Amino acid sequence: MSVDSRKLLARPLQDEPSLDVQGFDRPRAFMDRVAEDLAPLLEIANRPVLTARQFGRDQLVQLCRLAARYETQPSVINRPLTGKILISAFYEPSTRTRLSFESAWHRLGGDVMSITDPLSTGLAKGESLFDIGEMLNHYGDVVVLRDSDERSVYEMLEALRIPIVNAGNGLDEHPTQALADVYALLKWRPSLVDGHSDESPARIGVVGVPGRMRTIRSLLILLSRFAPGLAEIVIVTDEREPFEPDQREELEEAGLRIEVVDDLDVVLPTLDVVYINSIAWKHGDYESLGARYRLSEQSPFKPGAIVLHPLARGGELDRSIDATAHNWYFAQARGAVFIRMALLSALSKTYA
Amino acid sequence: MSVDSRKLLARPLQDEPSLDVQGFDRPRAFMDRVAEDLAPLLEIANRPVLTARQFGRDQLVQLCRLAARYETQPSVINRPLTGKILISAFYEPSTRTRLSFESAWHRLGGDVMSITDPLSTGLAKGESLFDIGEMLNHYGDVVVLRDSDERSVYEMLEALRIPIVNAGNGLDEHPTQALADVYALLKWRPSLVDGHSDESPARIGVVGVPGRMRTIRSLLILLSRFAPGLAEIVIVTDEREPFEPDQREELEEAGLRIEVVDDLDVVLPTLDVVYINSIAWKHGDYESLGARYRLSEQSPFKPGAIVLHPLARGGELDRSIDATAHNWYFAQARGAVFIRMALLSALSKTYA
Amino acid sequence: MSVDSRKLLARPLQDEPSLDVQGFDRPRAFMDRVAEDLAPLLEIANRPVLTARQFGRDQLVQLCRLAARYETQPSVINRPLTGKILISAFYEPSTRTRLSFESAWHRLGGDVMSITDPLSTGLAKGESLFDIGEMLNHYGDVVVLRDSDERSVYEMLEALRIPIVNAGNGLDEHPTQALADVYALLKWRPSLVDGHSDESPARIGVVGVPGRMRTIRSLLILLSRFAPGLAEIVIVTDEREPFEPDQREELEEAGLRIEVVDDLDVVLPTLDVVYINSIAWKHGDYESLGARYRLSEQSPFKPGAIVLHPLARGGELDRSIDATAHNWYFAQARGAVFIRMALLSALSKTYA
Repeated sequence: MSVDSRKLLARPLQDEPSLDVQGFDRPRAFMDRVAEDLAPLLEIANRPVLTARQFGRDQLVQLCRLAARYETQPSVINRPLTGKILISAFYEPSTRTRLSFESAWHRLGGDVMSITDPLSTGLAKGESLFDIGEMLNHYGDVVVLRDSDERSVYEMLEALRIPIVNAGNGLDEHPTQALADVYALLKWRPSLVDGHSDESPARIGVVGVPGRMRTIRSLLILLSRFAPGLAEIVIVTDEREPFEPDQREELEEAGLRIEVVDDLDVVLPTLDVVYINSIAWKHGDYESLGARYRLSEQSPFKPGAIVLHPLARGGELDRSIDATAHNWYFAQARGAVFIRMALLSALSKTYA
Repeated sequence: MSVDSRKLLARPLQDEPSLDVQGFDRPRAFMDRVAEDLAPLLEIANRPVLTARQFGRDQLVQLCRLAARYETQPSVINRPLTGKILISAFYEPSTRTRLSFESAWHRLGGDVMSITDPLSTGLAKGESLFDIGEMLNHYGDVVVLRDSDERSVYEMLEALRIPIVNAGNGLDEHPTQALADVYALLKWRPSLVDGHSDESPARIGVVGVPGRMRTIRSLLILLSRFAPGLAEIVIVTDEREPFEPDQREELEEAGLRIEVVDDLDVVLPTLDVVYINSIAWKHGDYESLGARYRLSEQSPFKPGAIVLHPLARGGELDRSIDATAHNWYFAQARGAVFIRMALLSALSKTYA
Repeated sequence: MSVDSRKLLARPLQDEPSLDVQGFDRPRAFMDRVAEDLAPLLEIANRPVLTARQFGRDQLVQLCRLAARYETQPSVINRPLTGKILISAFYEPSTRTRLSFESAWHRLGGDVMSITDPLSTGLAKGESLFDIGEMLNHYGDVVVLRDSDERSVYEMLEALRIPIVNAGNGLDEHPTQALADVYALLKWRPSLVDGHSDESPARIGVVGVPGRMRTIRSLLILLSRFAPGLAEIVIVTDEREPFEPDQREELEEAGLRIEVVDDLDVVLPTLDVVYINSIAWKHGDYESLGARYRLSEQSPFKPGAIVLHPLARGGELDRSIDATAHNWYFAQARGAVFIRMALLSALSKTYA
């Protein structure tokens, strides 16, 4: 039985989305708010990117500013990384994050070599990450690494004389996802950059488990850099111990006000931003947490509230939200390419 | 035991093939017959390529003309797709088709990101094709998709704002293979383009099962665009019901004269063209059909007859034919790169 | 539990290594010793690279000279392979060798298409290497092939009209690894090129089994081209029959003086060079041989002795040697990219 494709052919490709978050207005407004200053980015040049901890507010703001420039003026990019090679090592599969990095590097003019085998493949199966890192020094210019073992990026780092970017290390961190999250937030509310918000401080809900979800661990660290513009961070979870030891204390010392609640629908009408995720990593595998929390078009959102999600999504985020103005997760995914272009530019000290 | 390579080293690489089908004469003769006209290709720009149904005769002729230009003048191609990214998503493995597309894109100057994992890999295992498509909008400029589920290309299409090319969807269609088939046919007999053939109408044998082989389903649709220059299409099969419902009727309404026979050697001496294939798709796997039909140098070919095959081949096509003038299947494979260059150029509206 | 990354962030990336073998002095000294002469490389143009046997001394010296030029003057390389496509077919997994070739091709400006599936994948599972080779003629400009079956490269060769490079064929040969070995040796002692050594003839230990290790089989053939500058080749093994039939005789006819010993520590103080490997190929798999031989910082090295290893390493090569001046294996791995650039340049007749 063949698919009847005639009806489908009668309609054109999807139009450009009408949601303004994917147009040029938001990144332009952000650029108008913030003056370009490459000095904070010079501190990142030729450095490893391991953890959200290493980014200060000025670096975050300038990375987002550079990303906004790439997003709004793609035609001015003059392939500054021509002749440079990205080694894209995804020992744990992740099409989404891998393609995002590779697209970013290609759009800057560089070449890519991908590794998508698990570490246990082939002759190299007994090879140490130190030896692999030593090899990569000679074969490429930047390494992006994802592995389900949180120690891998640190073990490889010991041998490296070229920058490495942590693209997710087990259940530890995913700092570049958090960069994409922050870029979406700053496009949504540019006044967050300096804390004297034009609006009342933002109340951000985070549906998930900070102690066991790497995206959320990294995000909370970055949010602490913008604490003056934030009201509360509301963690929505039914776990008794959602934090790992010292995690909450550290974030509070950094200025975040944190609440923990277990009923999403009760708190939802008070939230300006809802960040939701249900994937938690276990060693070598993952599990779904918080299956009882679900967002749909019918959820009691505050008017104007936005939803962020690192994607891929499961049942926690219903497709009925896609066509509403709450949907900022597609813009967040789109921005992930531009913020990674900005980061890779900064590492390579070539600002297109 | 090491291979004794000394004798092998004594001989040079294979010479350029002596068969004229791989030289410049055939595509040049075709170009001389047909005037270039980019107008029909403009209708393809930024459109999905889903099914052979969507191509009219003028588009087919102009795609082949552009392919012939690329085949004869490779040096004039000025890398028009520099900075553009092809996402080559082969969830069902196919080295041959994948490399053909990737080579075409590279020869036009673009970059490629490949996905060769099955869809069930990794975190994305539950991700919908809609969500994957939404992501790909931001990461590349054109998507080529192969999947063993015929619905996948349509599901991804719902989210796409960039062109997608169906590179084989289950047992449904394989339209770009059919384009390569037509390109070979038009180089063989350029007069097919306008129907008032210089020669007597061509009689084309198709060894296979139209209702269950995607290459043959797509080919027959395209052949109907050239019905005036064709005598009969002779389906050679031992299946009782080789067509799916309405398939034969639709082709006949489009002008094809169709016979069905079950003895290849009886009909072979009357055929100008023999298209043979033995692979039929089943959901997630494939089977070999018509194992009793085999062509070899000893088969009773009509003088001057040509053999086409989409490759990879099994026992149905003996290597003894390779060195004969019946062998047009290698030229067909060679042309597959140029016709895909033409198609990708037309989608991208950049005609090198 | 998250990794405490703060300490790690406090320290910079590894400095450039202090070992002089990775600096510019060694390749420059080699370049000073040898005049550039491209004539021997013209004989390699458009030829297959199958076995170490095919390389004469002048070709080896000039390949190494070109490699040294690339190593010392990376900035002068003007992307001569722009628009050319390397098909990197690794049916047997090998990240190290694959990336080395792909990096070399990219650094010369070309594009790469990788095949990393086993040959048994997908529809092509019954396809002959002849048919695959015929296809590759049209899709790329050079093929690099690794397969665990030693016959594969010869079977594919029968169809090829573009150059193929043997990147390891079962337990037979690994000629480009041997090129990297020779490049390291010539940088270590440039006087080897003409045999009237400034120093006393070099005594080279080879820990491994020449009849069953492809790296060692290829290396010994290339060493025979420099026999006048060498004292003895000392094979260190506990196998009773370390050679395959005629292997030793052939090497001795070519001028090598060969000893076989079974006690590494007894002979070690007499060796100027120690080449060590413990991987031997079996059909489709590999085994570790000679586990009793181990080198560490405490081993009784001759002063100034250097250690070579094709990597990846197992227990036979202790990391304690890494920081000593005996460590030439990292330089050897680094040089592998430049010697492959030189080889690919010579095949393509484009000398950057």
